[in-house]
Amino acid sequence: MLVADNLQILRLDIQEAAVRQDPTPIARLVRQMEKAGAEAVDLNAGPCQRNPEQEMTFLVRSAEAATRLPLFIDTANPRAMAAGVRAAGRPPILNGFSLEPRKLRKILPLAADYGLDIVGYLLDGDGLVPPDAQGRLSAGLALFEAAAAKGLSPERIIVDPVVPPLSWQDGIKQQREVLEVLRLLPDVLGRPVRTVAGLSNLTAGAPSGAPRQVVESAFLAMMASAGLSMALLNVFHNRTMASARACRALTSDTPFSWAALGPPQRPTI
Amino acid sequence: MLVADNLQILRLDIQEAAVRQDPTPIARLVRQMEKAGAEAVDLNAGPCQRNPEQEMTFLVRSAEAATRLPLFIDTANPRAMAAGVRAAGRPPILNGFSLEPRKLRKILPLAADYGLDIVGYLLDGDGLVPPDAQGRLSAGLALFEAAAAKGLSPERIIVDPVVPPLSWQDGIKQQREVLEVLRLLPDVLGRPVRTVAGLSNLTAGAPSGAPRQVVESAFLAMMASAGLSMALLNVFHNRTMASARACRALTSDTPFSWAALGPPQRPTI
Repeated sequence: MLVADNLQILRLDIQEAAVRQDPTPIARLVRQMEKAGAEAVDLNAGPCQRNPEQEMTFLVRSAEAATRLPLFIDTANPRAMAAGVRAAGRPPILNGFSLEPRKLRKILPLAADYGLDIVGYLLDGDGLVPPDAQGRLSAGLALFEAAAAKGLSPERIIVDPVVPPLSWQDGIKQQREVLEVLRLLPDVLGRPVRTVAGLSNLTAGAPSGAPRQVVESAFLAMMASAGLSMALLNVFHNRTMASARACRALTSDTPFSWAALGPPQRPTI
Repeated sequence: MLVADNLQILRLDIQEAAVRQDPTPIARLVRQMEKAGAEAVDLNAGPCQRNPEQEMTFLVRSAEAATRLPLFIDTANPRAMAAGVRAAGRPPILNGFSLEPRKLRKILPLAADYGLDIVGYLLDGDGLVPPDAQGRLSAGLALFEAAAAKGLSPERIIVDPVVPPLSWQDGIKQQREVLEVLRLLPDVLGRPVRTVAGLSNLTAGAPSGAPRQVVESAFLAMMASAGLSMALLNVFHNRTMASARACRALTSDTPFSWAALGPPQRPTI
């Protein structure tokens, strides 16, 4: 599943729309994302520091009015998350929780109480990226234990292995740990598991003009081959989207068909 | 290592050059391939049915005069292979052998006698693609046994898992078997092993205008992540080549650098 990460409160037009409570810019952006191939939409409200409940309620209602696609409610603010859940007319996906105590206490229970899917990040209790695959896998086991303790069914959890920026000092090593984790996770958990990865983070901070989509496409293919179920990505990166369709064809069980790849891309040669 | 598969006797200009014994078209093509990023050149003489020894001698001498890049001598004809080895001023790589009796008897000994690297195909004794990963892995073990029997050091073998055309009825399954084989091979053989894969075969028979490079790029990334060491590919597919550079950066141990990806591609969005 291809989840658009383009709807972010940090975008000036979305921020202004939220302030004016004007759903038009949201609806326009959602339509563009659908046209680009989005299969779900992440509503990224960030920390929601000003009017958390009002902002999230507005985002959820505006997006639901504009599309039938599934929505991810993406915020670290428990009050905003709760407001989004209450405002939703259809079951949203919560994005997300981790082993941070505040999230275990205030966000995870929302998924249990409302019976919703929720993204679980492979971070430690301080919200930091573990140094290696083993640390991420341990975090995965702990996430499922915490969910069970709150009465949430394990099928509800969508694991996010946390894609690192390549600009990190150990970014090269970290991205390989992510691939390793995707490959090992079902065995470690002893069950099939849905996974989601935020692809845009890989090239965060890249200089303008850098061949970001080439790197995104290559890493997406590596993750797809390692078992990734969903990608959270910039759906306006048409080269990366074409690669995502190719990955889907290569990892599916249906006979290969060029038609499944959508319209041919503009040739670059 | 990126090995150009573009120099083929089946190309009309190369065929004519061979007939006229004119090295100019070979030199021109080799220069273009180097400029496109080739790191080695495969001299594909096919079955060499007319004048096998003369044709291969011409190809090897013309290519050696034009470039310092390593050359793969690619023919199923043992006499052509032997002629190529004799004509070469630098050690070539033989491409290649399989469990077919004629190749074990006539081509494999050339590698042993001259101390050359040789590509070993994971095919059965009839030269057919095994139906699953297990069959390919068994063929791999048998290739190394056959090489040992001829006195060839195992480090000399570069394994080719045989990339299938997606147009085959079971092409989708077969390409996943290739990835599985690449991942398992070092464990099955009990040693690190160099591998090479012919990428162009994946999209053989694709309709014109189909997004071949998108599919090539995705599968190349999957193979790179599974441990592939060398790709034999069309180096004039500039999108696939850009992806190959990204794969190298992602699978290397050196800190990531955008500069390593070469010049930014023309934006497609």
